[in-house]
Amino acid sequence: MVDAIKKLREKTSAGVVECQKALRESNGDVEKAIEILRKQGVALASKKASRAIKEGRIESYIHGGKIGVLVEVGCESDFVARNDDFKNFVKDLAMQVAASYPRYVRKEDVPESAIQKETEIIKAQVEGKPAAQLEKIVQGKLTKFFDDACLLEQPFIKDPSVRVRDVLTSMIAKIGENIVVRRFVRYQVGEEL
Amino acid sequence: MVDAIKKLREKTSAGVVECQKALRESNGDVEKAIEILRKQGVALASKKASRAIKEGRIESYIHGGKIGVLVEVGCESDFVARNDDFKNFVKDLAMQVAASYPRYVRKEDVPESAIQKETEIIKAQVEGKPAAQLEKIVQGKLTKFFDDACLLEQPFIKDPSVRVRDVLTSMIAKIGENIVVRRFVRYQVGEEL
Repeated sequence: MVDAIKKLREKTSAGVVECQKALRESNGDVEKAIEILRKQGVALASKKASRAIKEGRIESYIHGGKIGVLVEVGCESDFVARNDDFKNFVKDLAMQVAASYPRYVRKEDVPESAIQKETEIIKAQVEGKPAAQLEKIVQGKLTKFFDDACLLEQPFIKDPSVRVRDVLTSMIAKIGENIVVRRFVRYQVGEEL
Repeated sequence: MVDAIKKLREKTSAGVVECQKALRESNGDVEKAIEILRKQGVALASKKASRAIKEGRIESYIHGGKIGVLVEVGCESDFVARNDDFKNFVKDLAMQVAASYPRYVRKEDVPESAIQKETEIIKAQVEGKPAAQLEKIVQGKLTKFFDDACLLEQPFIKDPSVRVRDVLTSMIAKIGENIVVRRFVRYQVGEEL
């Protein structure tokens, strides 16, 4: 049990009590316990979504003076904004944006025009494939596009077995406040404006 | 002469040889020498404007986790991009943006619609003033608006007796390469998106 708690804490960075509860519920299955914690995070976030996100933190990451990132993550209280886990989470996001070049925070932020354009490109790529498989291939490639383009859908650079949104929901479960990735910007020297 | 050179270097951060030349030309008058150096900077920039600005540097400034700034300044060579004076200039700009909240890099970047809106506000403010003075007052207030809104027009936070564009032209004169403030962004926690 102690080993399982340790493992679960490493994976989710949730609190000891939350991990114990989740492991009891999953009968000691760590993978299931991760799921349970994530669902709690999601539930917590939606329960708390009505509360105002008026605090938060801005962090930057500069890579060799050539790539620069600014990220804002919102939370409910200044107490959380000054919490080290929260700060590190925001810093990790800034590094993620520098390394993995997302263009949107979440799926819902991708404009309809960009989805249309991407769909057209994909359809041109798969021309000639059997019609029966076509729809499935297009859907698969579109999912891949969202996974690339949206920060929350990307594999987390510090642990590619989870997505950034999993880290976010773990953070919400751990901190006990709603947390929202508000925005980011990424500059690269010399890129076209 | 040595004192004048020292003063001139402090004011413009230009090289010793440039300062000597400028002082010889101005017969030892420091203020005139500053003007000469600035004109050289402007001339150099326009002479070199055709050369490609494909290198540069990105710096950030974070104020207490609540305000974040990213600035990109372009130059011609990576050698200059790694120069300490250049780096410090970019850092100073990031701090300037955090403190003085410009909305545009230069006058030409202010959209016509913003100028129109500002002019209307000013005209409403000065209603009732004698018609003879009206145009002059409006022009004065519009100049004030540009001085507030444009990074290059703002008084430099480290020396409010000069403007940011004067620091830029001094830097161009000193470095001997064209330098362009390409863009900046300023985040403040909780501001409306």
